[in-house]
Amino acid sequence: MAEEQITAQGRELDEELLMDLLERREVEAFREEFLSHHPYDQSVFYVKADPDVRQLLYQYLSPDEMADIYEAIELDDDQYEAYFREMNANYAADLLADMYTDDAVDILNELNKEQVVSYLTIMDREAAQKIKDLLHYEEYTAGSIMTTEFVAIPKNSTVRSAMNILRNAAPDAETIYYVFVIDEEKRLSGIITLRDLIIADEDTLISSIMNERVVSVSVSEDQEEVARMIRDYDFLALPVVDFQHHLLGIITVDDVIDVIEEEASDDYSKLAAVSNMETFDRGPLTAAKKRLPWLVLLLFLGMITANLMGLFEETLDQVALLAVFIPLIAGMAGNSGTQALAVAVRGIATGDIEEESKLKLLAREAGTGLITGLACATVVILLVYFWKGDLLIGLLVGAAIFSSIFVATLAGSFIPLLIHRMKIDPAVASGPFITTLNDIISIVIYLGLATLFLGDL
Amino acid sequence: MAEEQITAQGRELDEELLMDLLERREVEAFREEFLSHHPYDQSVFYVKADPDVRQLLYQYLSPDEMADIYEAIELDDDQYEAYFREMNANYAADLLADMYTDDAVDILNELNKEQVVSYLTIMDREAAQKIKDLLHYEEYTAGSIMTTEFVAIPKNSTVRSAMNILRNAAPDAETIYYVFVIDEEKRLSGIITLRDLIIADEDTLISSIMNERVVSVSVSEDQEEVARMIRDYDFLALPVVDFQHHLLGIITVDDVIDVIEEEASDDYSKLAAVSNMETFDRGPLTAAKKRLPWLVLLLFLGMITANLMGLFEETLDQVALLAVFIPLIAGMAGNSGTQALAVAVRGIATGDIEEESKLKLLAREAGTGLITGLACATVVILLVYFWKGDLLIGLLVGAAIFSSIFVATLAGSFIPLLIHRMKIDPAVASGPFITTLNDIISIVIYLGLATLFLGDL
Repeated sequence: MAEEQITAQGRELDEELLMDLLERREVEAFREEFLSHHPYDQSVFYVKADPDVRQLLYQYLSPDEMADIYEAIELDDDQYEAYFREMNANYAADLLADMYTDDAVDILNELNKEQVVSYLTIMDREAAQKIKDLLHYEEYTAGSIMTTEFVAIPKNSTVRSAMNILRNAAPDAETIYYVFVIDEEKRLSGIITLRDLIIADEDTLISSIMNERVVSVSVSEDQEEVARMIRDYDFLALPVVDFQHHLLGIITVDDVIDVIEEEASDDYSKLAAVSNMETFDRGPLTAAKKRLPWLVLLLFLGMITANLMGLFEETLDQVALLAVFIPLIAGMAGNSGTQALAVAVRGIATGDIEEESKLKLLAREAGTGLITGLACATVVILLVYFWKGDLLIGLLVGAAIFSSIFVATLAGSFIPLLIHRMKIDPAVASGPFITTLNDIISIVIYLGLATLFLGDL
Repeated sequence: MAEEQITAQGRELDEELLMDLLERREVEAFREEFLSHHPYDQSVFYVKADPDVRQLLYQYLSPDEMADIYEAIELDDDQYEAYFREMNANYAADLLADMYTDDAVDILNELNKEQVVSYLTIMDREAAQKIKDLLHYEEYTAGSIMTTEFVAIPKNSTVRSAMNILRNAAPDAETIYYVFVIDEEKRLSGIITLRDLIIADEDTLISSIMNERVVSVSVSEDQEEVARMIRDYDFLALPVVDFQHHLLGIITVDDVIDVIEEEASDDYSKLAAVSNMETFDRGPLTAAKKRLPWLVLLLFLGMITANLMGLFEETLDQVALLAVFIPLIAGMAGNSGTQALAVAVRGIATGDIEEESKLKLLAREAGTGLITGLACATVVILLVYFWKGDLLIGLLVGAAIFSSIFVATLAGSFIPLLIHRMKIDPAVASGPFITTLNDIISIVIYLGLATLFLGDL
């Protein structure tokens, strides 16, 4: 929460004015104008600026002021390295030391080893130690997103002494609205909100008014689960403990918003087979590099489809009309499979599926596939009959659509469940994969049926 | 933030014990056990229970206790009506009056008119008036998600009197961590955090320490923009004002998390052509009902593809091998189009695209389509050549893949931009639509080229 910057001068800063002040090297006027804005808006200006303008910013702004910008900045993971390379190493080390530890660690995780070692060596020892303590937590765990800047008070304090501790901690702590109560061994034993504290009598003992049933998460807990808890319980912060219940850190709601956005955007990207979501300031070459691996992979899968169709070349040769319905049948299989996939992936992501038996879900999807398959088959038989006047082809296409939709719906829900069971993120079973798989299945069904009834066509 | 329930007894409650206590009608023991849990966990039990068990809950829990449950509950929009129908109208009205106004309004928006009128009539006048004031704000605006339970203090108060106001408001306000400062005309003129208040001297005037550059949103602002601001600025709450800057309400971070999840899940569902995301406790018939409209619509679009292919029946009749590559070409067009679509839709959703010129984006996508198209075409020419030993067919398929990918990539980014320009949610241009459109384009290109060079095949 970065000392809660609650002010900002509208959403946009006056770029022209700022650039003008920079060009005329009016340091004081620039600082006054620039620093009056919210750090997020400052970060937008900083990211948009040319490298030589950024050099001026490094001169005009203290590492501490730049740290506020980096608390709020939105950069792609692979952009941090270049930005930090622009800075003098001492400046960069001071900047990182001035940030909340969790945010500093997030950045260090994106830099190369050499940079990390150099900054941690230059940095003052205390700050470096705090960072090193967090650096060894695995990515995507509670430990990796927690911060160590929290307020803890001993169980035997009074409200008065607790308020004094709070007043002293206020400038540095990430949040002072939740106060964590610890026992002599630094184990988490309760929680109290600032709301409760300000209405309590000053001489009351904390232990008599604190909430003892405090919800906490283990350092190794998955960050998605943490996000889920903060969302469900509407917490502002959640304490993180080790296996002996020692209080190690806290996770605040603002960090969790980023996790939620990241995970949702990740699922979305994978459904569309775009590996990491691209940003918009990149050239076509960078975009192509991100998309091509998926496209080429899908191309090879598509060649399998073509190969399989090759087996039916003779059938196609005899009744060319058959080919006309291939995109329709493959398309319908792809569409229904993607629907089932999306429902299953989101269900796994939100945790709803854990609560229900997998078998029940599959049975439900089988039922859904049956109903949608029958409905679509009926429509298509009528359409083909009235368009081509050919009932037999209609029945053939209808049968193919029915079985394709049924199989595709089942596959669309079965595959993510299977992958999830194998402890792999189910979102990797992206839309295009399911679609290509369903292409293959549906074409084999269709042309197989056609070959079987070839004599009648 | 619902009075900040910061306690909870693990994530799971002991269902067996609770059911047992209910069956033995041990009201007090049940209440003690049940109410010791977090309202979210209570809500899970309540939703899972059979209707006759829920009747017991309505007897054993006060409307106020049930209101806490409804603050935390996760129901589909169309489920509220049935749940409220189970309750006695007086109970329901009291429940709604005991909720935070914004949450009560969210529920009333899902009930039918008759229910709304009945509850508002029974309810005590003050509560009913508060709800009516919020009910007329349009859905998806700041007004529709704001609450009126905030703490406002006059500009000329001292820190001491402000703290007294806060202590009195603490039990009812949604947050007391941000305190809003108003002038004589109730216009928003500043903001101060509880953090600042507790470290300030008691005799200080609020006007001398408040932050005057307070960020606020208009009641009619889009909720996505509100979510964006709270996320970017890491606020706990954001004030909502009318055009004369009168303070009308606040939006808290927990409401915004729901908006972010809702919007992300909405975009995701539409990419997969599942209208509203289904939940998992529904039968196959309900699921089929939600998916069928999309499938039938796509079926009709697919028939257009089939019709167009019918035009080339003669060509297909002469060279059956051509049909073999149709799913591959259509698939590649679909895949690259979906990639471009996902990037554009997310870009619009996160607001990144507003900042950049649309033309630049399209130029970039054209470049990306060119590169990916060329790369895939090269791969496919080699594959077909080595597989079929036929360079001409290889070149034909390659040319078709190149132009299909190029056109599909452009269409995938152009269409959502166009729809967005027309003030429609770009996510409605779902994956399957783009895919079907690209089917048509790619098949016409492929078979068109083939017909042109038919003599040489």
